[in-house]
Amino acid sequence: MCCGICHTDLHQAKNDLGMSNYPMVPGHEVVGEVLEVGSDVSKFRVGDIVGVGCLVGCCRNCRPCDSDNEQYCLKKIWSYNDVYTDGKPTQGGFAGSMVVDQKFVVKIPEGMAPEQVAPLLCAGVTVYSPLNHFGLMGSGLRGGILGLGGVGHMGVKIAKAMGHHVTVISSSDKKKVEALEHLGADDYLVSSDAEGMQKAADSLDYIIDTVPVFHPLEPYLSLLKVDGKLILTGVINTPLQFVSPMVMLGRKSITGSFIGSMKETEEMLNFCKEENLTSMIEVVKMDYINTAMERLEKNDVRYRFVVDVAGSKLDQ
Amino acid sequence: MCCGICHTDLHQAKNDLGMSNYPMVPGHEVVGEVLEVGSDVSKFRVGDIVGVGCLVGCCRNCRPCDSDNEQYCLKKIWSYNDVYTDGKPTQGGFAGSMVVDQKFVVKIPEGMAPEQVAPLLCAGVTVYSPLNHFGLMGSGLRGGILGLGGVGHMGVKIAKAMGHHVTVISSSDKKKVEALEHLGADDYLVSSDAEGMQKAADSLDYIIDTVPVFHPLEPYLSLLKVDGKLILTGVINTPLQFVSPMVMLGRKSITGSFIGSMKETEEMLNFCKEENLTSMIEVVKMDYINTAMERLEKNDVRYRFVVDVAGSKLDQ
Repeated sequence: MCCGICHTDLHQAKNDLGMSNYPMVPGHEVVGEVLEVGSDVSKFRVGDIVGVGCLVGCCRNCRPCDSDNEQYCLKKIWSYNDVYTDGKPTQGGFAGSMVVDQKFVVKIPEGMAPEQVAPLLCAGVTVYSPLNHFGLMGSGLRGGILGLGGVGHMGVKIAKAMGHHVTVISSSDKKKVEALEHLGADDYLVSSDAEGMQKAADSLDYIIDTVPVFHPLEPYLSLLKVDGKLILTGVINTPLQFVSPMVMLGRKSITGSFIGSMKETEEMLNFCKEENLTSMIEVVKMDYINTAMERLEKNDVRYRFVVDVAGSKLDQ
Repeated sequence: MCCGICHTDLHQAKNDLGMSNYPMVPGHEVVGEVLEVGSDVSKFRVGDIVGVGCLVGCCRNCRPCDSDNEQYCLKKIWSYNDVYTDGKPTQGGFAGSMVVDQKFVVKIPEGMAPEQVAPLLCAGVTVYSPLNHFGLMGSGLRGGILGLGGVGHMGVKIAKAMGHHVTVISSSDKKKVEALEHLGADDYLVSSDAEGMQKAADSLDYIIDTVPVFHPLEPYLSLLKVDGKLILTGVINTPLQFVSPMVMLGRKSITGSFIGSMKETEEMLNFCKEENLTSMIEVVKMDYINTAMERLEKNDVRYRFVVDVAGSKLDQ
């Protein structure tokens, strides 16, 4: 039915990570209708509206798989640019249909609009999972969201819904009004504003770092309280740097998180439904995809493109 | 009575951190006898054998101080190369005597030899504190100790006493026999042995990284299981590097820890007493201090020098 466009799709389409296989059908924020089920399928029926994220397979027999952390399975199968166990290539959500094992499919809670849900399946769970795993769900925490793109905007919304005081940290003040007024952030920091950064030192319990390109870590480590966590969610192949006293002298952690488990994806969808949480999206047809990719690269989207796949009439 | 020589003493004596004030009396693994107590002192009596570590003061009124994490107080006062609240310089354990607030003094459990205890007050608690704080005390865990110096050797002993499977990771095989036979490590990895490192990938719950100079982090991040922690304990002012997928794709943490709290110091001493845990030391007199410093710089000590301060007759 529809599929979000994530920054990783750009990386993959352009072989930025050096592991792309063509032809490739990207897309991993997929919402669709169940058209057919196999005989062993117990969780879904034809007609269900369901979601698929970044993964469609795992080994089911390792420590991560055994502990509901299948996203960290070393034999995970990606939704696209990968091969199934039968050797056939996986194809993502820009395709007209997909075949997916029920383990990697989630039911969309009733009443949620498909195009609204799409960005939750990667961007949403990418934020929800580390907050859940690292014990950062409680209200009253002070969080930072570094970078206001697809993941960042979900970060503000989800953290606010958890009752956190949320500071958006950005390289410029361009998004200040929208962060504070449209997304509901409590505070906005420009990273080049030395005085503002100094005032905010030692004030945050966590920062979700969504920046997918090289950036210095030390300015953000400084913003964290003792025991604070800098949580990286962007794949960056240029080495990041820090000096050890910056973490040691406040027992701070530099960590990272990769999407979330299927269990967390379900929990996150229910959380978003309960909180009436919506994403801010721009719906486009498939014939706009190249323009959308170019605009995404320039960060020119508020905040996620979602392709109306069904409405693009790919079969015609 | 006696005082260990820590690698930080070298840094401070040589102004490697750019903040040394001379004249300076180093030493922060101090064991001595209480000679005199002030009228408000309730915890100690004249004649008690006590220990002092890296700190002699804190603000008592901040979040870390309020939560028994005074080692992270931003106004902490170092045992030497610092000034007390009255403006007088602090002097470390190579002096004949010290004046220390009772909050920063621990009682040495009866029956423990002073020279044995000295290295516990920095090196010992530096290892004990992160294992305690990060929930890594349970038996059956698999830990790595990177670097076998003063802190590293205590790391092996303390982790073994907790019931962990302990792998020493070193740049050469020079210390293999002593690590396995004298210290009781279970395994020994040479970091340049690509095959051995590959075999050990994804096998450790934590690594305590005691290396006080620049080194790559990625080989060690690879050794960690999902959710594993790389815990830095060495002050290194050259930036350390890593690429974000190395932490993201296993939800690994790069963190650090700075000595430990006074509460943890007490707990650690009791733990070492119960476990009959001893340090491996070389006791020297004060007239050997310069040679000891030179040998320490070359890593030529098994594993900690302890200065017999009382026996050095400084007053004569």
